[in-house]
Amino acid sequence: MPRIRECVKKMQGYVPGAPARDEISVKLNQNENRYPPSPKALAAAAEAARNLSFYPESTSLELRKAAAQACGTVPERVMAANGSDEMLRIFFQAFCDPGDEVVAFYPSYTYYATLAAMQDVRYRQIDFTPDFRLPGEIDVSAAKLLFLPNPNAPTGVLFPESEIRRLLAAAPGCMVVIDEAYIAFSAPGSDSIHLIDEYPNLAVTRTLSKSHSLAGLRVGLGFAREEILAELEKVRDYYNLDRLSQAAAAAALLDREWLAETSAKIVSTRERTARALAGLGLKAYPSQANFLLVDCGSPGEAEHLYLGLGEGNVLVRYFSGRRLDSCLRIAIGTDQDMDRFLDALRELR
Amino acid sequence: MPRIRECVKKMQGYVPGAPARDEISVKLNQNENRYPPSPKALAAAAEAARNLSFYPESTSLELRKAAAQACGTVPERVMAANGSDEMLRIFFQAFCDPGDEVVAFYPSYTYYATLAAMQDVRYRQIDFTPDFRLPGEIDVSAAKLLFLPNPNAPTGVLFPESEIRRLLAAAPGCMVVIDEAYIAFSAPGSDSIHLIDEYPNLAVTRTLSKSHSLAGLRVGLGFAREEILAELEKVRDYYNLDRLSQAAAAAALLDREWLAETSAKIVSTRERTARALAGLGLKAYPSQANFLLVDCGSPGEAEHLYLGLGEGNVLVRYFSGRRLDSCLRIAIGTDQDMDRFLDALRELR
Repeated sequence: MPRIRECVKKMQGYVPGAPARDEISVKLNQNENRYPPSPKALAAAAEAARNLSFYPESTSLELRKAAAQACGTVPERVMAANGSDEMLRIFFQAFCDPGDEVVAFYPSYTYYATLAAMQDVRYRQIDFTPDFRLPGEIDVSAAKLLFLPNPNAPTGVLFPESEIRRLLAAAPGCMVVIDEAYIAFSAPGSDSIHLIDEYPNLAVTRTLSKSHSLAGLRVGLGFAREEILAELEKVRDYYNLDRLSQAAAAAALLDREWLAETSAKIVSTRERTARALAGLGLKAYPSQANFLLVDCGSPGEAEHLYLGLGEGNVLVRYFSGRRLDSCLRIAIGTDQDMDRFLDALRELR
Repeated sequence: MPRIRECVKKMQGYVPGAPARDEISVKLNQNENRYPPSPKALAAAAEAARNLSFYPESTSLELRKAAAQACGTVPERVMAANGSDEMLRIFFQAFCDPGDEVVAFYPSYTYYATLAAMQDVRYRQIDFTPDFRLPGEIDVSAAKLLFLPNPNAPTGVLFPESEIRRLLAAAPGCMVVIDEAYIAFSAPGSDSIHLIDEYPNLAVTRTLSKSHSLAGLRVGLGFAREEILAELEKVRDYYNLDRLSQAAAAAALLDREWLAETSAKIVSTRERTARALAGLGLKAYPSQANFLLVDCGSPGEAEHLYLGLGEGNVLVRYFSGRRLDSCLRIAIGTDQDMDRFLDALRELR
């Protein structure tokens, strides 16, 4: 019997929120976007489907042009990947030999740990402060990579530019990957792509899963200096993005009006939901993402609400881990979704 | 400036055949299928496009069921990947620590070397015999992985079951990956999936790029024992296949009639083309794939024909490396494509 690597044998594998089931009426557990994607994206996919016999353009050039235009940079500083998860894996493969150190914070996106285990890398987590902000002292002198979602998941906390600059200055030999999966739902001017001019150790990732309602399509983006991307290119699966994804994603990115309208609706619903939760005695952490982390007061109450909501076909996310076990993470759907969630919640309180 | 891994810095990156350009009239350089894909695949993609807001089912269950049915196995022995290239990378990530040995043959699919470099693995190539068959003695006692395309690319040579059994028996501690990208164009009964019952060290990969005319979609399959796939699962990108690809690929695999008809046409055109080439004094190696490796007599003549065909907008593949530098690899298109290729060739001879 052939032998699997030790580092892989020890792995548990990633556990995400439950996927869509037909009978789930209000699905608020994976931070998906409840508005349908831009019709222009769907039209572009349908058009591209006429030509599936040929390999795709391997560098996703048209998609990168669209991303550059939408994000205020140049195509040479953009890479396209099969979801931002592929983009994150590419960073591990390009920067980390076995035994190297990678740093992230706690609590944060749990997939970083899975990728670290896969690449046999030491994964160190630094605790956020009690209100889920960056601590004062951060030692990343030995790290190859540092990951920070901004805004963070599952807390929704946004870190201001001054804090991002502090990280970048503290770690000149470390690639700092700012994971902007949720930035479309943050205050204008919160993103970090423009800082790449100043900091060669900065990379930014994006995904179309949440902001563009295309979780089912798998398109992620990476932004970094040209000389960094030239190396990352070597470890990217050569034909990593199919023709339908490239075409749909490019059209979605160019439909700026759709993004502005949809994001504004979600932000407005988020604030309305936070106020309603406060009225029920539940504290939501200040969120700049398309979800709210809600403190239910105790692990018992969080579990009670999680299970009760599930019985009523309202799916939310419960993390049982340290510092999160009194909380639920609630994705922000339409106003109608949130009303049904709040109604179900009122019955359980 | 953050430091890229040494093994990545040294890499050259993969170089495939030139991609589609609009002005290319006969494109025979990437072994693409020149018949349009099954209409059922396109209809399934269009249907799946109605639901792109949600994450896909992460294990591609419906696609794996279809693959199992089409290939005579069970869904538990199938993994679906973003092209067979992702499937191949997964084998490296699951089995190879840096410095481990991986073996393939020469000449063969060049992407194995790229994947080995990416994973910092020693890549050893064993020469095929002068007629591109397996040598008598094959020492793979120290190897973690062995790759053999069957039929082989770029030669088209098919290895009989007895030879596959010899490899499997010679390497009980080594995962033997039989890469069946072109098996749809081989004589019935040539495939190795049924041998997985007997040999725990056997894995088989497939792609829908050539057989199902879906190179633009990126869907590959891996077949192995359940206990092997359970480990490979851990290093697969979690949501590696989007909803459109899963749906289209499942429908394509279930349209057995389309596959039988199209493959029969291509095989018939291949044999007709080989005879026509013989009439022009050009020897094609006996091929069981959707391409022919054609010996032009000398490197000078091969280059002359390659460049001349290109000027006439007929794209074929020229490998300048050892043992291949007198040859051209010609994909098999429609009869009409091949007539245009043969006409252009006659003018150059």
